[in-house]
Amino acid sequence: MKTTETELIGTIAGMFQAPSQNGPARRRKPARLNSLALGIGDDAALFSPTRGCETVLTCDWFLEGIHFLRDKHPADAVGWKCLARAASDIAAMGGQPRCFLLSLALPETHAGRWLRTFLGGLRRASRKLKCPLAGGDMTQHCQVLINITVLGEVRSGHALLRSGARPGDILYVSGRLGEADLGLQALRNSRGVGPNDPTLRKHFFPEPRIAIGRWLAESRFATAMMDLSDGLSTDLPRLCKASRVGARIHASRIPFARVPKWNQAKKVDVVSLALNGGDDYELLFTVSPHRARRVPHSYQDVALTAIGEITAERTLRLISRHGIETDLRPSGWDPFAKSSNAS
Amino acid sequence: MKTTETELIGTIAGMFQAPSQNGPARRRKPARLNSLALGIGDDAALFSPTRGCETVLTCDWFLEGIHFLRDKHPADAVGWKCLARAASDIAAMGGQPRCFLLSLALPETHAGRWLRTFLGGLRRASRKLKCPLAGGDMTQHCQVLINITVLGEVRSGHALLRSGARPGDILYVSGRLGEADLGLQALRNSRGVGPNDPTLRKHFFPEPRIAIGRWLAESRFATAMMDLSDGLSTDLPRLCKASRVGARIHASRIPFARVPKWNQAKKVDVVSLALNGGDDYELLFTVSPHRARRVPHSYQDVALTAIGEITAERTLRLISRHGIETDLRPSGWDPFAKSSNAS
Repeated sequence: MKTTETELIGTIAGMFQAPSQNGPARRRKPARLNSLALGIGDDAALFSPTRGCETVLTCDWFLEGIHFLRDKHPADAVGWKCLARAASDIAAMGGQPRCFLLSLALPETHAGRWLRTFLGGLRRASRKLKCPLAGGDMTQHCQVLINITVLGEVRSGHALLRSGARPGDILYVSGRLGEADLGLQALRNSRGVGPNDPTLRKHFFPEPRIAIGRWLAESRFATAMMDLSDGLSTDLPRLCKASRVGARIHASRIPFARVPKWNQAKKVDVVSLALNGGDDYELLFTVSPHRARRVPHSYQDVALTAIGEITAERTLRLISRHGIETDLRPSGWDPFAKSSNAS
Repeated sequence: MKTTETELIGTIAGMFQAPSQNGPARRRKPARLNSLALGIGDDAALFSPTRGCETVLTCDWFLEGIHFLRDKHPADAVGWKCLARAASDIAAMGGQPRCFLLSLALPETHAGRWLRTFLGGLRRASRKLKCPLAGGDMTQHCQVLINITVLGEVRSGHALLRSGARPGDILYVSGRLGEADLGLQALRNSRGVGPNDPTLRKHFFPEPRIAIGRWLAESRFATAMMDLSDGLSTDLPRLCKASRVGARIHASRIPFARVPKWNQAKKVDVVSLALNGGDDYELLFTVSPHRARRVPHSYQDVALTAIGEITAERTLRLISRHGIETDLRPSGWDPFAKSSNAS
C-alpha cells in the first residue's frame, strides 16, 4: 500500500506539533513571537502581522544535484540548511523570521526514514530560529526538490537594503568567510571526514545571522546590507550595483577560514576560498565612516570585521597582501554561468 | 556565452515593470491595492500589511511531468496557470491576493523564447488578479520546476476555514465541475484540438474565484470553504474531516461540464468527471440552512449550485440519479496514491 498525500501531511503536522488536518485549531490570541493564527491543514496559512512592522518575504530553492547531493548530505543537514539559508535572506534585511512554508517533492522511497530524519533537522532549525511551520505543498517526484518560503517582520522603515551604501562607508563582514566551501571540499574528497567533523559544520548547519541583522537594522548602524550566499566576489558587486558605487577590499583584512591540521598539507588557498566560496550566510554590510568607530569587534561572539571601503568610482578593486591592486572578478556561484561552483 | 542569473532576473524584472537590481526604488506610500514597498532585486521583498487584515499565505508546486507536460502545454498557459492555481488557495480562504514570489528552475535551452512566453502568461494572470511579482529565486535544472508563493489578505476574523461546516448546512459549488479534466482528456487525445479550443480553456487558463470567495467571507454567508483542486470526491472528505461531519451529495444536482458536439460520440461520463476530475479551482462551501434561501443562483455570472447537505453522521454518501445511495469514494488526484490521475 502506497503512502497518501494526506498521510504525509499528517506525519509532518505531527512532527511539528501543529494542528493536523483533523480539525485545525485556531488560536485567537497569538503570542508575540508566534503570530500564526492558523497553521498546517487548511487551504492556506493565516498570519497576524505585528502593528508597526513590515512583512519580509523570501523563497529559496534547495534541489538535489544542484544544492545538495543525496548520497553526500545527511538528511538532517538537508532539513536544517534549507530553512537556515532561506531565513538568512530575512536576516539580510534586518528582519526576524516568523513562519515558513515547506514545498517538498520526493520519491516514494524517501517518504519513510529519509523524510523523518529530514524533518528532524528542519524542526531543529525551526525551533532555533523561532520560526514555526505554517503550511506548504507535497508532491511525488523522482528527485528530492525543496522550496522554502520564509515570512519575517521588520520595524517599518528599518529594513536594510542593498541600495543604501555611500562613498566613504566602511565595508564589514560577520564571521569567517570560506568555511562552508572548505567543508564542501572536504566532503568531496571525503577521506577521513565523518558527518560530525567540525570542518563540515558550517557547510551542513549554517547559522543565519538573525541577531546581528536585527541589531544593525534597529540601531541604524548599517547603511546597506545583504547576506553572502554566492561568495564575496559575486555578492559584493550586487550590493555595489544596487547602491551605484564601487568598493576596495583588502585581502589582508578578510577573516578567512582556519584550515584544520589534517588538511594543511594540501595548500588550501584560504583567500580564494574567502573571496569565492559560497554558502557562508554571513552578513556583508556598510557603516558610515563617522559611526564605524562605534562598531564592536564582535556581536554575540561573532566577529565583525572591516574589510574595505565604498568608493564613488564604480569599480571593484582588491588590494593584495603585498599592496598590489587588481580588479575583483566575480567567481562565486551562479547557477547559469559556465564556471559555476556547483556543489 | 551563457545566460547569467543576473541577466535572467533582469529579463523578469523588465517584463514585470518592477525596479531591477540596478537600484531598486522604494515607494514609501504604497497604494491600497499594491502594498509592495520593495519588489524584485534585494535579498527579500517588503510588504506593508493593511491594518485590520490577516495575512494569508500559500505555496504551490507546478512541475513538468507531474502538473504539466512541456510538449503539450503552451508556455503562456503554464505561466497563467501556475499563478492562478496558487491564488485559488487565497480565494478559498475568502482573501484577496496581494503579491507573489516566483521560484523557477529551468534548462538553459528554455532561458530564451520559452521563458518570455511563460512570463507573458504569468504577467497576464498577475494583472488580472491584481497580484504583482514581489521576488523569487532562479536556478538551472534539467526540467522546468515552478513553485509559487502567494501572499493575500483577509479582514481579521473573516477567513473561511475548512472546519466551520455544521450538520444541516447546505453544500454549494461555484461554476461547473469536470470542465478542466474534460480539457485534459481532449489534450491527451489531441486530435483536432488546437490550443485555442474552448474545451481547453479551463484546463489551460483557470480563473480563481477571488470575487466569490471575498463576498462569501465578507457577507458571512458561508460557514466553511475550500477550493476544488483535486476533484470533489477527494476534496469534500477533507472539508468533512476538518469539520468532523459527513455529507450527502446528489448526482442529479451537480453542475457538470457540457460536452462539445465533436466529443459526444465518445460517451464521456460527465458525472464521473465532475466527481473525480481535478484542476477546476471552483469553490466548495457550506451555508447554514436558514441563510441558504438568500444565496443567489449566480454571482458575477458564475453559477452557485446547492449539491447536497452536511450530516452529523461522518460518512460521505452519493445519491444517484435513480435515488440509489452509495459511498462516495475518493478518486481524484493524489500524487502519492496508486491510482492518481497524473496529468
